Amino acid sequence: MRVGLLTSGGDCQALNAAMRGVVKGLFEYDKKVEIFGFRNGYKGLIYKDYTQMSRSDFSGILTRGGTILGSSRQPFKQMRVPDENGLDKVEAMKQTYYDLNLDCIVILGGNGTEKSANMLREEGLNVIHLPKTIDNDIYGTDVTFGFQSAINIATDAIDCIHTTAASHNRVFIVEVMGHKVGWLTLYAGIAGGADIILIPEIPYDIDNVVSAIEKRGKEGKGFTILAVAEGAISKEDSKLSKKEYKSKLAERKYPSVSYEIAAEIEKRTGVEVRVTVPGHTQRGGSPCPYDRVLCTRLGAAAAKAIVDKDYGNMIAMVNGETKRVPLGKVAGKLKSVDPKAQMIKEAKIVGISFGD
Amino acid sequence: MRVGLLTSGGDCQALNAAMRGVVKGLFEYDKKVEIFGFRNGYKGLIYKDYTQMSRSDFSGILTRGGTILGSSRQPFKQMRVPDENGLDKVEAMKQTYYDLNLDCIVILGGNGTEKSANMLREEGLNVIHLPKTIDNDIYGTDVTFGFQSAINIATDAIDCIHTTAASHNRVFIVEVMGHKVGWLTLYAGIAGGADIILIPEIPYDIDNVVSAIEKRGKEGKGFTILAVAEGAISKEDSKLSKKEYKSKLAERKYPSVSYEIAAEIEKRTGVEVRVTVPGHTQRGGSPCPYDRVLCTRLGAAAAKAIVDKDYGNMIAMVNGETKRVPLGKVAGKLKSVDPKAQMIKEAKIVGISFGD
Amino acid sequence: MRVGLLTSGGDCQALNAAMRGVVKGLFEYDKKVEIFGFRNGYKGLIYKDYTQMSRSDFSGILTRGGTILGSSRQPFKQMRVPDENGLDKVEAMKQTYYDLNLDCIVILGGNGTEKSANMLREEGLNVIHLPKTIDNDIYGTDVTFGFQSAINIATDAIDCIHTTAASHNRVFIVEVMGHKVGWLTLYAGIAGGADIILIPEIPYDIDNVVSAIEKRGKEGKGFTILAVAEGAISKEDSKLSKKEYKSKLAERKYPSVSYEIAAEIEKRTGVEVRVTVPGHTQRGGSPCPYDRVLCTRLGAAAAKAIVDKDYGNMIAMVNGETKRVPLGKVAGKLKSVDPKAQMIKEAKIVGISFGD
Amino acid sequence: MRVGLLTSGGDCQALNAAMRGVVKGLFEYDKKVEIFGFRNGYKGLIYKDYTQMSRSDFSGILTRGGTILGSSRQPFKQMRVPDENGLDKVEAMKQTYYDLNLDCIVILGGNGTEKSANMLREEGLNVIHLPKTIDNDIYGTDVTFGFQSAINIATDAIDCIHTTAASHNRVFIVEVMGHKVGWLTLYAGIAGGADIILIPEIPYDIDNVVSAIEKRGKEGKGFTILAVAEGAISKEDSKLSKKEYKSKLAERKYPSVSYEIAAEIEKRTGVEVRVTVPGHTQRGGSPCPYDRVLCTRLGAAAAKAIVDKDYGNMIAMVNGETKRVPLGKVAGKLKSVDPKAQMIKEAKIVGISFGD
Repeated sequence: MRVGLLTSGGDCQALNAAMRGVVKGLFEYDKKVEIFGFRNGYKGLIYKDYTQMSRSDFSGILTRGGTILGSSRQPFKQMRVPDENGLDKVEAMKQTYYDLNLDCIVILGGNGTEKSANMLREEGLNVIHLPKTIDNDIYGTDVTFGFQSAINIATDAIDCIHTTAASHNRVFIVEVMGHKVGWLTLYAGIAGGADIILIPEIPYDIDNVVSAIEKRGKEGKGFTILAVAEGAISKEDSKLSKKEYKSKLAERKYPSVSYEIAAEIEKRTGVEVRVTVPGHTQRGGSPCPYDRVLCTRLGAAAAKAIVDKDYGNMIAMVNGETKRVPLGKVAGKLKSVDPKAQMIKEAKIVGISFGD
Repeated sequence: MRVGLLTSGGDCQALNAAMRGVVKGLFEYDKKVEIFGFRNGYKGLIYKDYTQMSRSDFSGILTRGGTILGSSRQPFKQMRVPDENGLDKVEAMKQTYYDLNLDCIVILGGNGTEKSANMLREEGLNVIHLPKTIDNDIYGTDVTFGFQSAINIATDAIDCIHTTAASHNRVFIVEVMGHKVGWLTLYAGIAGGADIILIPEIPYDIDNVVSAIEKRGKEGKGFTILAVAEGAISKEDSKLSKKEYKSKLAERKYPSVSYEIAAEIEKRTGVEVRVTVPGHTQRGGSPCPYDRVLCTRLGAAAAKAIVDKDYGNMIAMVNGETKRVPLGKVAGKLKSVDPKAQMIKEAKIVGISFGD
Repeated sequence: MRVGLLTSGGDCQALNAAMRGVVKGLFEYDKKVEIFGFRNGYKGLIYKDYTQMSRSDFSGILTRGGTILGSSRQPFKQMRVPDENGLDKVEAMKQTYYDLNLDCIVILGGNGTEKSANMLREEGLNVIHLPKTIDNDIYGTDVTFGFQSAINIATDAIDCIHTTAASHNRVFIVEVMGHKVGWLTLYAGIAGGADIILIPEIPYDIDNVVSAIEKRGKEGKGFTILAVAEGAISKEDSKLSKKEYKSKLAERKYPSVSYEIAAEIEKRTGVEVRVTVPGHTQRGGSPCPYDRVLCTRLGAAAAKAIVDKDYGNMIAMVNGETKRVPLGKVAGKLKSVDPKAQMIKEAKIVGISFGD
Repeated sequence: MRVGLLTSGGDCQALNAAMRGVVKGLFEYDKKVEIFGFRNGYKGLIYKDYTQMSRSDFSGILTRGGTILGSSRQPFKQMRVPDENGLDKVEAMKQTYYDLNLDCIVILGGNGTEKSANMLREEGLNVIHLPKTIDNDIYGTDVTFGFQSAINIATDAIDCIHTTAASHNRVFIVEVMGHKVGWLTLYAGIAGGADIILIPEIPYDIDNVVSAIEKRGKEGKGFTILAVAEGAISKEDSKLSKKEYKSKLAERKYPSVSYEIAAEIEKRTGVEVRVTVPGHTQRGGSPCPYDRVLCTRLGAAAAKAIVDKDYGNMIAMVNGETKRVPLGKVAGKLKSVDPKAQMIKEAKIVGISFGD
């Protein structure tokens, strides 16, 4: 058996754990399996930048953050566009695959990565996709790896801010990652005890945000914590066309939405507002135990799928069980927070405002 | 509305977070709700040891371990046995309930606590049960609170042992809590990268354990980590009657099963084996973000059930949704690890031995 | 005995631990001691906003971040300026002190707070100062409390960035707090394995920074981590007068120095540079064990000084021993990093660049 | 330049960080330095088990626990006793040293390791010793590496126990490592808020321990936490001769002193006492930022000493500065806690009982 491995897109916490799972599983089945690691995502596959790896290369990496293979962002849109030297990237990837005589390639990545993986499947390659992203926005799986680890880091940030906010009677905004969806902000916000949570799926009205802060003041709470998704959007802006919104963003004088919201709150309430942006720390560090278990299971299930020669799937976690989900059915779809989800209702029950 | 609260059994990490969820939810519905907190579990209900609590008593406790109400163990078996002064405990509890004119009492606890809660329900009281235990052995819910926090602590212990084991080429046993079930050991063992996992549901054969250690030696791994559940049992012992096993345990010269296994391994392999018992630390400390989200949701759902006057239920988490599960259907049932579960198979795929 | 307590300036991690030490110490000496806690720093003393506190108010706060008394910034410069109602703040504070018939007031804070404490001493009040700040810039003590806890948080951020930087071959800047000094950046930078450390005491030359990045590239390291103090300054700017520099800062189009450095590096190298600003998280969360021991000792030593009626001192830690340092000798002086310090030389020995 | 490296004795958290410091420092001085890593402590030197290492072998190990070289315990007493094949170990080590034509060997270890290093120095080898131990008992340095990381782990354990003790009104003992000295217990005990701290240097009287527990009861505290050093000893036992005490220990029916103290307390008070033994976890995991800074500095100072050809020293940290301390002056001396130390007095001021 000859199996390729690559990690693509923004890195996150349990990529190594997942690869360890796949490789340990394959070696338990077949001691002669040959593993090829492609460097820096699809680039390695395109430009034949790979290394043959031994079992011991995957030893001791369960707890290590990042990816031992390196990663890079390769926008799906440009996959079919020749590179600066006129190279057809798709053909180049196929060539590498066939030259190495691979049985299969295991691709770890998020939504964009999945789309490219599906394209390779359509081109006739045997692929397995493992759903990696701190954003948790991959359709077809209940949870992605990296998500819980990122929740932990973002929650730590909110926890730290909590003590300082309470000591100073201030309003604090913690800006949480999550790309176009609010999963990470929703979970970290609830876990950190945020009073107001703003996510892209529930456009906010700044008046409601201000009311929620003032309500706390009336209840004798001198401080308020907002967890704001990097993609949060106001009701007003949500009515703009994509193009209009983009050009509005381009002109925004603030580095991100949180600073804009902060300025608005300060203007309306006179209270000092501070913004904290944990940023890329949310992708880093050692994976949490939850993600390590998740990745060991996904990795094992991927190994089993390879042994079964059942390709073309994402290995998902659904209702506590790993599952093979055909890439053709899920690639290109985004999983967003449903504003009517039970969890949103429960958050509202305990008094969290979504500014809607 | 007049609502009672009590926490019973061994404490764990997110009891306060869960109570905060219930109380925040109730106050959002009705600012005039009256909360009565019973001290030290059922004792407080029996002996009228309670205090009326304000909303602010539950402020800032989301991250605090333990329980602000105190807890105590009250074996279900003795509930109907009069106390040393001849007091009928069940009648006493009912009396307290009626004297305070409660609409409902919210009871946080594990399996034993749930049985007593169900008995109170049968006696005509309005009860709501929230599933608390690091053991994860409550039937009818996918997960209990405390479980993930305990996994984190047990995994930390295994992580620490990993570096020392690797440096010294030794065999290490980490004994993990879990009462009669193996959930905590299974998850922490996989998360910590244990090579061998021994749980009560899969009785072990010491020969297989020794083989697994020796197999690692042949693969050039100088050390082995075992995660052993406090309730782990050998195949031989699993064939004994309950009574026989109890009397065998009573005579055991080791403080716990791990020491016995360690002695066996040393005898058979000549390798030095060290045992670590994180013990009660697994119940302590601040709840992890996962448990805080879980408890906020369960608490909100409990508040909603109280408002709906829908009593007699455990509030469970099933497939990612909170759910009201009638106590009559679940009380007294234990949720064990199924030896044929997908997760066990996956653990075996990556080479973990269960000694079976 | 009647003792006042106040916490002033930016909050930090072990304020509660220090107050607990003082109060536990006083109660062990004299069960009848009366404790008065002033709210929100000097404001509480000025406006008679205080509460009498019992021993149990200080129980269980050893690990809690922030300050149970609240804090506020009260610039020393404005202490002698009447407030908006014409109130003479200094006289008001003295009045409160005498009205309450205090034996002493214990003041926890940083440099500015210390200057005000010294002024109150000169005005005839009995004061004790405890050196609080994550900046570690208080003259007369080897270390301040909050410093080590902040190092831990800033280092965590660098650790998280490390895994993501290594996976993507990028340049990352982590901006570390520290006001006008580089202590926090120096320690967190070394602890986090930063390749380049920029601090106010060692003005940087951007050419040297770029060379250091390129040197790493030549050694086969695809990524570089910079720890940059919020007060870092270029050689060029360090030659400006204070006034000139201030007006230059006011015109700067970047939110902070790190963004400016990032832009410069991108311009000169073409490599993508990302900036992370942990910000106020560095002040928050639970104090680390080091700070808890430090504060318990400083608190005990403060209690002893009060019992000895030896007022007018900062309680410092010097060469591992607590020491009473007369406020008159230290107030107003800043402790900066000496560019020729042994530690700087050692950092250079292991290849860290300071851009000088 | 040709330099050897070995790590000996029980492993601890920052061994890799220290070696990284030495090697980075050497390579900055001289790109052609040759590094030889001996495996498993002195064994590698005796039996010529070594590997030549590149700079990149020491890259990325700043945060990794354990030792990449492996370690083993080699009692000083047996260094001059031939091995089972009649090999003269000292001569064998010298032979390896001369065969490899080493300029120097850097030895990382605790007290025993230091004695052997000093012996090698007396035999004419160039050695540098770096003071490693979680016990902090090396004479001539203010602090050893591993110590602060171990404090953090032991304090975490006490923190976890705190929440559970407070919830259940129990007495808890946390047994802390430290070999024959009480440093680790003293620091972790104060940091964790232990009420009673028992260390070898201050023999305890069980009556005083019980009184301290009862005093807390009278003050309304339902629980008590004891931090007990693994080497704690009663006043009575401290009067025995070494031989008598050893034979008493051999007959002790409890696995360690904590269990014996627990039984005594239970007998005298009737209160339930639980014992927790974090054990080897205290040596493991990632080094804390404090230890990483310490080791980077010690490593750099060692590199400088090698470049200066100034051998035969331990590199110590004294009053915040690294210092070369002649091995002949310190080897064989133990640094214990002085019962009259200022820190002990301060601990007593805040009400901590030492049982004396």
